[in-house]
Amino acid sequence: MNFTIQNVSIATDDDYVTVDVQVIDGTIAKVAPHLEVVGSAVNGENKLLLPGFVNAHTHSSEMWQRGAIPPLPLELWLAELYDFAPLDTEKVYLTALSTAVETLLSGGTSVVDHLILIPGQELETIATAVRAYREVGIRAFVAPLIQDESLTAGIPSGETEQTHDPYFRSTTATLELIEEAVRQFHRPDEGMNILVAPTGIQLCSDALFEGCSELSDRYNLCRHSHLLETKAQEKLAREKYGCTAVEHLKRIGYLDYRTTLAHCVHLTDDDIAILAKTKSTVVHNPLSNLRLGSGIAPILKYRQAGVNVSFGCDGASSNDSQDLLEAIKIGSILHNVTDLDYQHWITPRQSVEMASLGGAKGLNVADTLGAIAVGKKADLVLYDLTSLSLLPRTDPIGLLILGRPTNVVHSIWVNGKQIVADGQVTNINVEELRQQLFNHSQWHANRKSQTVAQIEAHYRAVMGL
Amino acid sequence: MNFTIQNVSIATDDDYVTVDVQVIDGTIAKVAPHLEVVGSAVNGENKLLLPGFVNAHTHSSEMWQRGAIPPLPLELWLAELYDFAPLDTEKVYLTALSTAVETLLSGGTSVVDHLILIPGQELETIATAVRAYREVGIRAFVAPLIQDESLTAGIPSGETEQTHDPYFRSTTATLELIEEAVRQFHRPDEGMNILVAPTGIQLCSDALFEGCSELSDRYNLCRHSHLLETKAQEKLAREKYGCTAVEHLKRIGYLDYRTTLAHCVHLTDDDIAILAKTKSTVVHNPLSNLRLGSGIAPILKYRQAGVNVSFGCDGASSNDSQDLLEAIKIGSILHNVTDLDYQHWITPRQSVEMASLGGAKGLNVADTLGAIAVGKKADLVLYDLTSLSLLPRTDPIGLLILGRPTNVVHSIWVNGKQIVADGQVTNINVEELRQQLFNHSQWHANRKSQTVAQIEAHYRAVMGL
Repeated sequence: MNFTIQNVSIATDDDYVTVDVQVIDGTIAKVAPHLEVVGSAVNGENKLLLPGFVNAHTHSSEMWQRGAIPPLPLELWLAELYDFAPLDTEKVYLTALSTAVETLLSGGTSVVDHLILIPGQELETIATAVRAYREVGIRAFVAPLIQDESLTAGIPSGETEQTHDPYFRSTTATLELIEEAVRQFHRPDEGMNILVAPTGIQLCSDALFEGCSELSDRYNLCRHSHLLETKAQEKLAREKYGCTAVEHLKRIGYLDYRTTLAHCVHLTDDDIAILAKTKSTVVHNPLSNLRLGSGIAPILKYRQAGVNVSFGCDGASSNDSQDLLEAIKIGSILHNVTDLDYQHWITPRQSVEMASLGGAKGLNVADTLGAIAVGKKADLVLYDLTSLSLLPRTDPIGLLILGRPTNVVHSIWVNGKQIVADGQVTNINVEELRQQLFNHSQWHANRKSQTVAQIEAHYRAVMGL
Repeated sequence: MNFTIQNVSIATDDDYVTVDVQVIDGTIAKVAPHLEVVGSAVNGENKLLLPGFVNAHTHSSEMWQRGAIPPLPLELWLAELYDFAPLDTEKVYLTALSTAVETLLSGGTSVVDHLILIPGQELETIATAVRAYREVGIRAFVAPLIQDESLTAGIPSGETEQTHDPYFRSTTATLELIEEAVRQFHRPDEGMNILVAPTGIQLCSDALFEGCSELSDRYNLCRHSHLLETKAQEKLAREKYGCTAVEHLKRIGYLDYRTTLAHCVHLTDDDIAILAKTKSTVVHNPLSNLRLGSGIAPILKYRQAGVNVSFGCDGASSNDSQDLLEAIKIGSILHNVTDLDYQHWITPRQSVEMASLGGAKGLNVADTLGAIAVGKKADLVLYDLTSLSLLPRTDPIGLLILGRPTNVVHSIWVNGKQIVADGQVTNINVEELRQQLFNHSQWHANRKSQTVAQIEAHYRAVMGL
């Protein structure tokens, strides 16, 4: 499995050099011009080699509803999502494959799947996603989405008295489930990781967060949650805790250097200081935040405060794609309208670093991933710079990040194993996958969600609409 | 050239129907199920037919610098652009072709090229772009970019005394040039239109605007300008006119039902009422507005005020792509963060209408273009709904607008002539174009603009940075 990429462009601090890159036993062994060829030779001419990006937050099975949910804010959108989510493991399998394929073909080598679990088939759901990611060969961080409160508890009560059905599974049973998943599937050396992933303050008790922290400490697991995605959640946190959600999560010990927090749209300056101090990572999902009208996360402020930021696509019914390059582009240029001083704006090279090293930091693997350097694992993406969408030739990283690259990923290696060659995913039959996705679905328009009809009036009242 | 598309999905008000579409002599003759085949038969199964979109504002030759310009606001970005713009007609030709190709392959059948003219070779530049668009077969609206003040006049003076070099060509000579272009190239029946296109209030005298209005009236030409793209321009208008730019343009008679205005980011409520009253069209260029930090145009307000809105990619060095579906997606979901009430948000079907009929209205061709209806010209795009990026099957328009469709355009007809077949542009050799774009360019990083160095301190002072 050793190989040497010859005459390939890599980025230096502010320029490019042409080098050879030698990979031995899954690790980058040498980076220099004119190396001897070890293993197979790969032609890197007119190509750019970058460390693989991390799709740092998604929900793979949402792909079954991409394009289907009308423009709605998160709280009503969720009701739509769950009204029409009759999943089975076959469907989970297909969209995990598809999420992996779209992530790879847009420069990602790692995916964090905040995996929606089929009630009553939780371990089977996890096993299915694990199987799909292993088949494709992408590095996977499977984060089973757990909660211990029922959906309506996620909307602030405002001035009204609200009661909510108890959640169908106890906190203890949920934590046992996750521990069992860790035992069965957590194999970091094989590129397969299980995370503790309470969905967020809107649907989780302190006991669940604390149980997850305990598991995280015991098994050295990363922690993953949604955080303050919407104004409604900001309101809810005040109702629940009498302080901000970040203050509360810090108090109960959930925030640390292994914690990645999706969205982080509605944070105070004090909250930002807490994220910096605890070394928590923000996962920016710009397309989802726009699509759901959640707001613009203050990413430039995070960067100025020293908070690590990475990018995610979010689930494909709030985006509605898994194109990581699109998320990186929009997540970079979006913030130029939030600060008149262009010296604070994110440069394309910074975007690349956020998407690769930033992603690795959040997942506690920055020592081994996220850069092209001797001793790092070979999670590498080779881009074809002769693609029409990357021409005329100018600055390759500028073209890749600010353009709309299509069909540009030539080859990918994860842990030194090639899983994309000549633009094609090698380990699975994508044509067969396409046919299966077609067969398992039906076109439609005009779906009506019963739950939205039930909760919309309350939502509008509480949000002052 | 007659043809019948069989068993194709088209959108009704809120659903889809499967029909046949008969096109005779470039015009839609019948739309109904089970028609007899007239001319050649086209298989529309598992495909969606939409009216072609309008790429309603771009500058084709900017493609030579896509990916190259660092994150800068418009005024400094422009200095970069012009420092490195040694164009020749060969280059103009290649990027007009490439702009047409990227527009087509993202659903566009019309392009408005606010064409940067090579000094001293103005008519040759126009002739070159006209030739390129005729070769591809796209419907073209060539809008030669004119001004009669020099570049530095576009930055507000603030408290300082500023003098500017006179522009190298007189207002009269510029107007004569445009009139000559109209005589030589304006052939609406052949899909080739010339527009009057003073760049904007920042670099044009009243005499130039008035001369353009006069030409527009005399030859029934559309009018095209930038308008209030940046805060600096808002400031400049106050300095120049003592009122808003919109008030001034109304006073001098430039605004009418044939006027399309690119950007419109910084308008007052009174300005919006003037656009509605004069029936002017806003061209929304969301990606450029983000990239240059210009701001978020108040598109939901425009729609509520009854102002017609269409979409543009803007030139490829401020985007840095010509993917119209990307501009439509971002230009639709971006505004969800500007208004908490989701009932005002743009739906995917509304996006389609803005991009097709909205574009046609602004170009004064809504009677013949912008919809699939009997009697309309056949500017049609057939999308392959079995593409991986449009699966699983849900709502086709939702998938197309909110997703990240790639390789989905199957066929395109403009005026009934097929110019894309099976995903390939038919009239030119795209592989040869790709090779030419490669040969005429060189990778680089770290360009330094002398003009930016000269004007940056003044810009920062005036903008309070």
